[in-house]
Amino acid sequence: MHLEQLTIVGVGLIGGSVGLAAKTAGLATRVVGVGRDERTLERAVTLGAIDRGTKDLSEAVADADLVVVCTPVDRIAADILTAARSAPPRAIITDAGSTKGNILRELAGQLPPRGAMFIGSHPLAGSEKRGAAHGRADLFRDRLVVVTPTAETDLEALSVVELFWQRLGARVVRMDPFEHDKALAVTSHLPHAAASGLAGVTPLEWLNLSAGGFRDTTRVAAGDPDLWAAIFEANRDEVLAATDAYLRRMAQFRAALEGRDSAALVAWLTEAKQVRDALGS
Amino acid sequence: MHLEQLTIVGVGLIGGSVGLAAKTAGLATRVVGVGRDERTLERAVTLGAIDRGTKDLSEAVADADLVVVCTPVDRIAADILTAARSAPPRAIITDAGSTKGNILRELAGQLPPRGAMFIGSHPLAGSEKRGAAHGRADLFRDRLVVVTPTAETDLEALSVVELFWQRLGARVVRMDPFEHDKALAVTSHLPHAAASGLAGVTPLEWLNLSAGGFRDTTRVAAGDPDLWAAIFEANRDEVLAATDAYLRRMAQFRAALEGRDSAALVAWLTEAKQVRDALGS
Repeated sequence: MHLEQLTIVGVGLIGGSVGLAAKTAGLATRVVGVGRDERTLERAVTLGAIDRGTKDLSEAVADADLVVVCTPVDRIAADILTAARSAPPRAIITDAGSTKGNILRELAGQLPPRGAMFIGSHPLAGSEKRGAAHGRADLFRDRLVVVTPTAETDLEALSVVELFWQRLGARVVRMDPFEHDKALAVTSHLPHAAASGLAGVTPLEWLNLSAGGFRDTTRVAAGDPDLWAAIFEANRDEVLAATDAYLRRMAQFRAALEGRDSAALVAWLTEAKQVRDALGS
Repeated sequence: MHLEQLTIVGVGLIGGSVGLAAKTAGLATRVVGVGRDERTLERAVTLGAIDRGTKDLSEAVADADLVVVCTPVDRIAADILTAARSAPPRAIITDAGSTKGNILRELAGQLPPRGAMFIGSHPLAGSEKRGAAHGRADLFRDRLVVVTPTAETDLEALSVVELFWQRLGARVVRMDPFEHDKALAVTSHLPHAAASGLAGVTPLEWLNLSAGGFRDTTRVAAGDPDLWAAIFEANRDEVLAATDAYLRRMAQFRAALEGRDSAALVAWLTEAKQVRDALGS
């Protein structure tokens, strides 16, 4: 696989890492970055994440073979549409968003017929940090990337997207976009909310009384509030359902503790331990 | 500071680490370990955590200068009482339990007058792992140990306990035992429950769709269910109060998301980020 031009829309942590990884792997002759801020683009060039930067998305995709949209989830669909209208018909567009159903809903019936195709991707990699300066050429190594084809997806284009992520070092699985959103609500979005909830009830003056458990459990709460609010809203119904299941589960804990039901408390903790042990350390 | 004999009651992860650290620091001529299982004691001797092991607590403390009780929180008070009845009057007894108020309530009026004194300690160090085999001589290095004197505490004995932990590498703070329990309910016990709640609602087949966020947020859920049930029960009222505050906080999240109130959602996440950022990575 070799691309004449790879265009990355949004050169933050994920977009910057896509650029670094693609350039390290020698995947593209040119890597063009699109951003809204001149200095961010200059920094991404300096870091070696992109060859050149531009604020003009239409211009940046005009000669692209592959476009990877790495903007926040509430901007992805609009960026895909703009890209699809200016990219060559042979171009393939993918993204790196944490939610997939909302994009398909927003795109429904909007993509130009016989134009560039869109196939959703979600690399399960990231950090509570922001910006291309925190990007890493190995961010995707041994990480999972979920690609979310639909009934309309061209299988050849799907192979290109899968091969692209594999060449960045990732393992790829295919999944229905709505199943993806249901699962990620539980494995990613809910944990973020739960961690933020914990941090939110902790008085600053007690932070010196925290140890590794608090540190680990709340780490993701340092994430960007705007990015995460957009993720929750993009996956609203599934996150609400996951939150309700979680609140019911926590209510079981509370009831066992209040009722001094040691056996129920141990059973509740044991069920959790079995799941966590299955994941490994 | 040099002790002729240090006795450690319970040679698991914490007790084993106390032994390794004390021996590394050359703090005691003899380190005697007390356990309920012959093989555990033999292993602790082999690991170099203790010089000899015994199942007889009374015998083990008869010549002790300092006794550190490292058993689960629901056994600490009973072990302190047994130790106090057999230890020399000059001996000092401390512990390593995660809760302090329950011990004082259980001990109230029970300690022999003019006998060995008890001063509570809580080293904020540990792991989801168990057993002396996971113990480390540096487990307490740069960690916080909360000591919880009361109005009756002898200040000279307090200095000995504080110096002991400092010599194991720890920083020491004094705190009222009931204030300690209130704070730790929020900074340690609630995070454990929240992490277990998350793991408990996650289907095993979705674990491959988890990344670093889930891994960190749920890590402590691998902890020992019996130990943690005992901690929750020992600090029942404070954990219930912390859980209620947490459930109210999570309900705010749910309401903001359901009501599509982006500003409230961002504010909720921002408050959490400010707390987590204050802790540092």
